[in-house]
Amino acid sequence: MSRNKSPVLAVDLGGTKIVAALVSAQGDIIQREYRLSLAKEGPEPVINRLLAMIGCILDKAKIKISQLMGVGIATAGILDARRGLVTASPNLPGWHDIPLRDIVKSKLGVSVYLINDASAAALGEHRYGAGRDVDNLIYLTVSTGIGGGIIIGGELYSGVDGCAGEIGHMTIETDGPQCSCSNFGCLEALASGTAVANEAISRVSRGEKSSLTEISGGRFENITAEIVGVAAWDGDPMACEIVAKAANYLGIGMANLVNIFNPEKIVIGGGMAHMGDMLLEPARRVVRERAFQLPAGRVNIVPAQLGDDAGVIGAAAFVFEKQSC
Amino acid sequence: MSRNKSPVLAVDLGGTKIVAALVSAQGDIIQREYRLSLAKEGPEPVINRLLAMIGCILDKAKIKISQLMGVGIATAGILDARRGLVTASPNLPGWHDIPLRDIVKSKLGVSVYLINDASAAALGEHRYGAGRDVDNLIYLTVSTGIGGGIIIGGELYSGVDGCAGEIGHMTIETDGPQCSCSNFGCLEALASGTAVANEAISRVSRGEKSSLTEISGGRFENITAEIVGVAAWDGDPMACEIVAKAANYLGIGMANLVNIFNPEKIVIGGGMAHMGDMLLEPARRVVRERAFQLPAGRVNIVPAQLGDDAGVIGAAAFVFEKQSC
Repeated sequence: MSRNKSPVLAVDLGGTKIVAALVSAQGDIIQREYRLSLAKEGPEPVINRLLAMIGCILDKAKIKISQLMGVGIATAGILDARRGLVTASPNLPGWHDIPLRDIVKSKLGVSVYLINDASAAALGEHRYGAGRDVDNLIYLTVSTGIGGGIIIGGELYSGVDGCAGEIGHMTIETDGPQCSCSNFGCLEALASGTAVANEAISRVSRGEKSSLTEISGGRFENITAEIVGVAAWDGDPMACEIVAKAANYLGIGMANLVNIFNPEKIVIGGGMAHMGDMLLEPARRVVRERAFQLPAGRVNIVPAQLGDDAGVIGAAAFVFEKQSC
Repeated sequence: MSRNKSPVLAVDLGGTKIVAALVSAQGDIIQREYRLSLAKEGPEPVINRLLAMIGCILDKAKIKISQLMGVGIATAGILDARRGLVTASPNLPGWHDIPLRDIVKSKLGVSVYLINDASAAALGEHRYGAGRDVDNLIYLTVSTGIGGGIIIGGELYSGVDGCAGEIGHMTIETDGPQCSCSNFGCLEALASGTAVANEAISRVSRGEKSSLTEISGGRFENITAEIVGVAAWDGDPMACEIVAKAANYLGIGMANLVNIFNPEKIVIGGGMAHMGDMLLEPARRVVRERAFQLPAGRVNIVPAQLGDDAGVIGAAAFVFEKQSC
């Protein structure tokens, strides 16, 4: 296997699950593993789990670490790219200034690159997914939280410390609800899957009528954004209202991005994107109402194409491009 | 005069005044003219005034149009850079799809470039002012309105149609007051000079006690943001409260930019910047409270250095760089 054809081992480390994959230079997944993160156990067990998954993939694919181009790790949180630290991560409890890059590098003896998970997904969608045809795009992942990635002139824009793109933590409601980042009225606190689930739980708990009471068997804490989406799809008025409210906030956030970036595309990934046009069509309408006509008319707001693989594919693309510099 | 040393004739066309200047390749102003825009008269008289100013400067400097590198026009509003149009401008009444570039080009027979006024000021501050030492900066002009300019990797980021950077029209209060752009709760509607003046006028008109009543001689409509700033400086409690409120909103807007761009600097220009640390210090505190620690600790929030000349100097820099491509 020649050096320039070597695959990358890419990991997407999230608050809920870890995905690891062997990715070819063409962006194809050769081998893939999923595990629960069990993030509550703290950094060390999670890192050991991640290392074990890498070992497992190498075994299955019958290749050695030395045959890899490198390892790319997409991680939720605020990364200090230059020092290879996970400085903080709302969805990874206990992760404060964890030198993840150097820990993994010292265990494996191979080049390791860290990238924010939404930035990785942005890169993946740009190189191999819904953004292949444009040079300027904003990627938003709307799931438990809201992450973002910015592609400018065909390149990932990371800012001076590598932590740009925290679009979910843009305040759009000054005195809005508190966010997991401790700020108030962030887009994430208003339009994420967590926000949708929390509002549904709070409203059925207060006794509002909704099919969600029955669907959840009275165990309101089990209500998720996905369940709210299904109920809305079936016409439940309360669920429809909650989805419409999230779509309105998502539209406001995107109108801001349209006025600031004048992008060609906004690509929407994450679990909430599975709601499709029920979420995206009212959000597009808000963009047309609130943003300036020229950039609002220009932008295409489209669903992502790579699904759960965007993070690993993007992390792999990041390594291929770093190594070819 | 050799071709590569030719000066640029730069114009900054705003809602209140027009500045025209002959600018050297070193960014020095050789000759300068000011006129009121009298924008209410509509596009044609304003364009004729602008052409007359250019003629006047060439006469005074004793140079011919053919000796210019080109003409750069910084204009308030949403420009379609590719087609050379001013598509809309809240502060230039009647300007809808005005082909300003081609009108001026056909009159003068020289290359003409249009650039948004805040983008020009951003470029000017980056090349010759407060942003000389960094590669990634956001420029904000806080005056009648709030404009923005984005410098990424040392270059002006303009978006796909050339109308990026409308940071003043980022919603930070979903149901906030209506803005001149017709959207609601924009940063401009909450933290601009107009917002400050309007709130002061509305509060003294309702009979609230303030030194502004005396300063304005009871003619409340004459109260400007500058006057509110002076009253706040003198300790007037109502004026202090209004400035603090604007600073809070400005801080929220900047916290959003810090989370999105992870920039090295934010440079603040425009009339409101003359309030200095009375406005900027509380705004910096809000950034530290609301944005993520890593990018908030990184960013320097500083006043602009070029004052009213930023627009013409930046428009000239834009032409020099376009012509040398």
